[in-house]
Amino acid sequence: MEKGIKVTVWNEYRHEKSEEAVKKVYPEGIHAVIASHLNKQGGITAKTATLDQLEHGLTQEVLAGTDVLTWWGHMAHDEVSDEVVNRVQERVLEGMGLLVLHSGHVSKIFKRLMGTTCNLRWRDVGEKERLWNVEPGHPVTQGIGDYFELPHEEMYGERFDIPTPDKLVFISWFEGGEVFRSGCCYERGHGRIFYFRPGHEIYPIYYEANVMKVITNAVRWAAPRIKQKIECLNPQPIEKLNR
Amino acid sequence: MEKGIKVTVWNEYRHEKSEEAVKKVYPEGIHAVIASHLNKQGGITAKTATLDQLEHGLTQEVLAGTDVLTWWGHMAHDEVSDEVVNRVQERVLEGMGLLVLHSGHVSKIFKRLMGTTCNLRWRDVGEKERLWNVEPGHPVTQGIGDYFELPHEEMYGERFDIPTPDKLVFISWFEGGEVFRSGCCYERGHGRIFYFRPGHEIYPIYYEANVMKVITNAVRWAAPRIKQKIECLNPQPIEKLNR
Amino acid sequence: MEKGIKVTVWNEYRHEKSEEAVKKVYPEGIHAVIASHLNKQGGITAKTATLDQLEHGLTQEVLAGTDVLTWWGHMAHDEVSDEVVNRVQERVLEGMGLLVLHSGHVSKIFKRLMGTTCNLRWRDVGEKERLWNVEPGHPVTQGIGDYFELPHEEMYGERFDIPTPDKLVFISWFEGGEVFRSGCCYERGHGRIFYFRPGHEIYPIYYEANVMKVITNAVRWAAPRIKQKIECLNPQPIEKLNR
Amino acid sequence: MEKGIKVTVWNEYRHEKSEEAVKKVYPEGIHAVIASHLNKQGGITAKTATLDQLEHGLTQEVLAGTDVLTWWGHMAHDEVSDEVVNRVQERVLEGMGLLVLHSGHVSKIFKRLMGTTCNLRWRDVGEKERLWNVEPGHPVTQGIGDYFELPHEEMYGERFDIPTPDKLVFISWFEGGEVFRSGCCYERGHGRIFYFRPGHEIYPIYYEANVMKVITNAVRWAAPRIKQKIECLNPQPIEKLNR
Repeated sequence: MEKGIKVTVWNEYRHEKSEEAVKKVYPEGIHAVIASHLNKQGGITAKTATLDQLEHGLTQEVLAGTDVLTWWGHMAHDEVSDEVVNRVQERVLEGMGLLVLHSGHVSKIFKRLMGTTCNLRWRDVGEKERLWNVEPGHPVTQGIGDYFELPHEEMYGERFDIPTPDKLVFISWFEGGEVFRSGCCYERGHGRIFYFRPGHEIYPIYYEANVMKVITNAVRWAAPRIKQKIECLNPQPIEKLNR
Repeated sequence: MEKGIKVTVWNEYRHEKSEEAVKKVYPEGIHAVIASHLNKQGGITAKTATLDQLEHGLTQEVLAGTDVLTWWGHMAHDEVSDEVVNRVQERVLEGMGLLVLHSGHVSKIFKRLMGTTCNLRWRDVGEKERLWNVEPGHPVTQGIGDYFELPHEEMYGERFDIPTPDKLVFISWFEGGEVFRSGCCYERGHGRIFYFRPGHEIYPIYYEANVMKVITNAVRWAAPRIKQKIECLNPQPIEKLNR
Repeated sequence: MEKGIKVTVWNEYRHEKSEEAVKKVYPEGIHAVIASHLNKQGGITAKTATLDQLEHGLTQEVLAGTDVLTWWGHMAHDEVSDEVVNRVQERVLEGMGLLVLHSGHVSKIFKRLMGTTCNLRWRDVGEKERLWNVEPGHPVTQGIGDYFELPHEEMYGERFDIPTPDKLVFISWFEGGEVFRSGCCYERGHGRIFYFRPGHEIYPIYYEANVMKVITNAVRWAAPRIKQKIECLNPQPIEKLNR
Repeated sequence: MEKGIKVTVWNEYRHEKSEEAVKKVYPEGIHAVIASHLNKQGGITAKTATLDQLEHGLTQEVLAGTDVLTWWGHMAHDEVSDEVVNRVQERVLEGMGLLVLHSGHVSKIFKRLMGTTCNLRWRDVGEKERLWNVEPGHPVTQGIGDYFELPHEEMYGERFDIPTPDKLVFISWFEGGEVFRSGCCYERGHGRIFYFRPGHEIYPIYYEANVMKVITNAVRWAAPRIKQKIECLNPQPIEKLNR
């Protein structure tokens, strides 16, 4: 049996097979790079799952054995079945952590958990991004200084149509004149959710030390603190006054 | 053309037709009582819509002309079509106000906007409820004193599986030993949402002066402050650095 | 008797008397420009008060007649007496609105109400600032589009040591590479507080249409919704079980 | 050198010396009971400090060596020197955890950090209290079930004049008809603050297993995650555009 935090790294895994430019950066897929990094960290065991696997690789059994799920998707959000989305949502509400990365902002599962469109503005000209750490005391930002930079990134700009985050930990500055709420912490049910903006299929973002440090921190922060189902998730009527 | 705030009072309207005990309290339906009260308040024009009407009475046209929608449902949540739920969600995100009443806590539209199960504990023995006003400065609680009471109510108890409210305005005390977050304010997209616990099909809750005062206040609070669509709800790529 | 919202515009009023460069921009003081603008808006009556007046112009009587107080200070925060700070804090908790402008971020009254240092980073080289509207549905941002710009401003940068705002409405982008939470809404006691970053004694910020529109909106948002004292602010023991 | 989390348990320690009824329950003082319990938990080393010691036992050195401070005061809040309050506030903003217990709600340090009066209603007739766990997934509530009870307690009732908690984890039900936000989590600066309602000088509350489990959980939750000073707490101007 695996010890520590069990992570499932989910990836749409389409760009990497269909586009040369992406294949060059992520020959085994974005998921392979993320999982490989996490497996080198103490106390974390990461496996992977992808869209084109049976049930997108997210069977009841896989999810039952997952403490934290990370999500990367872009061009095929609509191909994720509602049944799997329901299943993931249920597990998050029961306590599984969820990290939503970059273009996952309009994935079915993120929109489902947020209740909003999760739309934003964007521009892809490879401009500089600087992520300011506005919560230096938060577990997700440990080891990150005042800010860190990504030399070439796709821009995401406000207004980002999300509920006010429970805690906003990063705000991005973009060379082109925009800002963005780039690190957003939520709690839904008994689960913790972290949206993290950086990441792109062509810019080698998931090889950046600071990006991977934040993802590792976020995995630890989002790992479930309770494992059992909470009664009110399967409510029963209460027959008697019990004062 | 109607002036002031245009309200659509939506009701499942089934109990009132099928159960004698309910018919006696609400012979024309819960919606009729709520709409009639609102129409006596200055600056509000209320119409009604019910489940068994075409498109549940919530056509594109009706919703386009609605500033605030109130929602009461109980036994037939599943019969509300996903298409209408999508439509209502879209309008809320564009700025329409939504009041979710009592058993509407597990309506499709409330769960959709919250992203959680919205489950709770309950008991129906007609016990006393006292609602404490924890935000006496909030628009929704104006004219309500320190607390108000309902002599006979169904109990709803914690844990209520909702996201942390943006503002919690009422906490209920129940004779039988439970507490409940009874007045919860949210903002999603450009819309305001208010969940208000009281209300039952047999206890004559919607004839209670304080309950109707809160509903009237909440209608005024939830009325949209902007009318136009916000660009980022229909995002377009931005081509150039614009600094 | 004045009608509408009664505003007191408070200013330290020292720079304008001692520095030629400031006197040129604000010959009658920053307070005169702000008050004059507010007095041209419907339903607002603005007076002024300054540090060197008796009791800093903020007597019990003046505060009793004030719905919203705006605060500008910079070089003489320490000269504001604790007695007046206590008095202003008490009035805010009773429901008076407070707008804290620019360098007022380290005023005694703002630190008192926030409980933190309210420190930040800064640089004054006259760079461009762009304020992004992240809450287009909020009363404070009405009439402001996606963003507005100030061609020459002092920079304030994160981390800004404040409690997480109840609602963050503006995020600033600075030419030099920083971001800042520039429009922050709080509720404390029964009062509403708005911190608004722009403003400087040399750059003519308080002549900018968008800045004054936000200040006017914020005055309306912060105007008290209740006038009477709330009992729990002067608590008495309750002798009997009252269930 | 002590290992693990270093706790300083602070107590006013007056009632226990002056009143027989209190001395009987807490012969060595409330602080002794709390510290003794904490010292039996793994990874925690607790010492004590009291009002009548030099500098109230809270010298620079003691605070520098404290990870989490717990605070109990009642009759002598005004005797705590402003200098020590400043010192404690500074340490909290730098990252030290703070637990404020029961009547500490109107201590100088809690009011300082909250910015409000922190007033409430109360009644002392030894009635039953039931604390509902509204955040079963939160670190502070681990091992607590749906609720726990205290057979005889002083009542604290709403409205409690505090800023909206970052996270509300317990709501109390009182036999006499009141409710109260009994477990309130805050972050200020880099420090975490937990207000916990139960506790009284005559009822033997600090011998209750559930109360002590919550206090122990809260000590672990509030322990600092960073140790170094954050630059913006001692801000320096930044001279150059650094984009």
